[in-house]
Amino acid sequence: MSPRTIFFISDQTGVTSETLGNSLMTQFDGLQVQRITLPFLESADKAREAVQTINATARTDGVKPIVFSTLVQDELRDIVTGADAFVLDFFETFLEPLERELGLPSAHATGRAHGMADTLIYDRRIEATNFALSCDDGSRIENYAQADLILVGVSRSGKTPTSLYLALQYGIFVANFPLTEDEFEGEGLSSALAAYRAKLFGLTIEPRRLEEIREARRPGSRYASPQQVGYELRQADALFGRYGIPHLDTTARSVEEIASWILRETGLKRAAAS
Amino acid sequence: MSPRTIFFISDQTGVTSETLGNSLMTQFDGLQVQRITLPFLESADKAREAVQTINATARTDGVKPIVFSTLVQDELRDIVTGADAFVLDFFETFLEPLERELGLPSAHATGRAHGMADTLIYDRRIEATNFALSCDDGSRIENYAQADLILVGVSRSGKTPTSLYLALQYGIFVANFPLTEDEFEGEGLSSALAAYRAKLFGLTIEPRRLEEIREARRPGSRYASPQQVGYELRQADALFGRYGIPHLDTTARSVEEIASWILRETGLKRAAAS
Repeated sequence: MSPRTIFFISDQTGVTSETLGNSLMTQFDGLQVQRITLPFLESADKAREAVQTINATARTDGVKPIVFSTLVQDELRDIVTGADAFVLDFFETFLEPLERELGLPSAHATGRAHGMADTLIYDRRIEATNFALSCDDGSRIENYAQADLILVGVSRSGKTPTSLYLALQYGIFVANFPLTEDEFEGEGLSSALAAYRAKLFGLTIEPRRLEEIREARRPGSRYASPQQVGYELRQADALFGRYGIPHLDTTARSVEEIASWILRETGLKRAAAS
Repeated sequence: MSPRTIFFISDQTGVTSETLGNSLMTQFDGLQVQRITLPFLESADKAREAVQTINATARTDGVKPIVFSTLVQDELRDIVTGADAFVLDFFETFLEPLERELGLPSAHATGRAHGMADTLIYDRRIEATNFALSCDDGSRIENYAQADLILVGVSRSGKTPTSLYLALQYGIFVANFPLTEDEFEGEGLSSALAAYRAKLFGLTIEPRRLEEIREARRPGSRYASPQQVGYELRQADALFGRYGIPHLDTTARSVEEIASWILRETGLKRAAAS
């Protein structure tokens, strides 16, 4: 089977185009592909340049490239549709039916998705990211009043990437706090956490996977040993049970899956429509 | 105009559905909407529950909700299409034409986008995020050999969110280094940076905007003063020029825009098709 080149074309970042195209392409197994994103096609000249690139690729590959396009302006879209390729344009397909249903004309304006169209929402995502960084790994407990969510779990259970993802993508203020022997051997949840019990969400992970992750980080350490890992996970689980903390097993789940799951379980609103 | 409820429906995270639906909705001005994401509809029962929620909303709103759906399984999609709503299903629309063009059947399998379908790529995103965190703000210069990219710029020019976004979204290893008086008043680029000149990318920002951002952080400080901000930005610009460092003005650009721009300018490959 000949390899296919996939182009993601956009008058803006290409994020929507990549999301659409990659989602669809995951449904085709055994296809060899190479991916090329051509973002910021904001003028007829740039659109024509893109067509030349696509056509040259068609000749080299000996097979039509697949083009996923999110061009808002009709003029640019018409140019790209003329390429020697199989073009699927997202806006062309969906905007008209939506216009009819809503009884509204669409703006046909560039730069609205993934831009700073709404500065307030955008600033919130950046603030949330700064918050997640400052409240990473048990830091700045004094700022927990501002948190929408406090992730708790043992070291390397997925707290940090999840916090950052929720912040960057959705503008949610997420702190994270590591469960360690302080919590396990003391009187239970430290007062800092106990005061915010309603904001807590636990992450757990299968022992085998955690051993692997920790072993990669500190080979041969007690930290990565089955004994220590098993002990910490059992203790964390007991804490979740004792305090009624909702929790999720992150093994074999992507950050996107963990984040969506948490939003569904907690009912937290996505502040940002990114 | 009656407010519209927008549902994002998915058998997985809902990320694709949200991205695509929000992109389309940005094209309609003056529309009051409320957004509800219903992720992980993995069974007929859950799909029927979603339909009940949608139908109840249709009654309350007095107008059909808009449903953006990315359901892969025909059975679930058929259930949701029966809702009292205007349903746009992305897979239904594009999979068949793609199958025809590729001459391949699609897998019709759930859980391929935004999941851990490719563990290696997924692990790379997490490693990249850890790298970005450890090499934030000039830390761990000794690890710069591993970096794909080193962002340089004055404090609060956008380095950290951009590094994290490139890591989480695309699996790119990004360090960031703050330009301070050490660089401006010394002999120019410190040897740590000079050794990796080809990996450097500069971020700059308009003085007014930087004053605002710094003022919010440290009101009335020298750090936020027009004099200091102007001085730092002029010096940073001079460094970019002197060493031929490509750079971008981040004012009024979203993290997605900055990231896409950098990828295009540097030719760095997205390691991950997230």
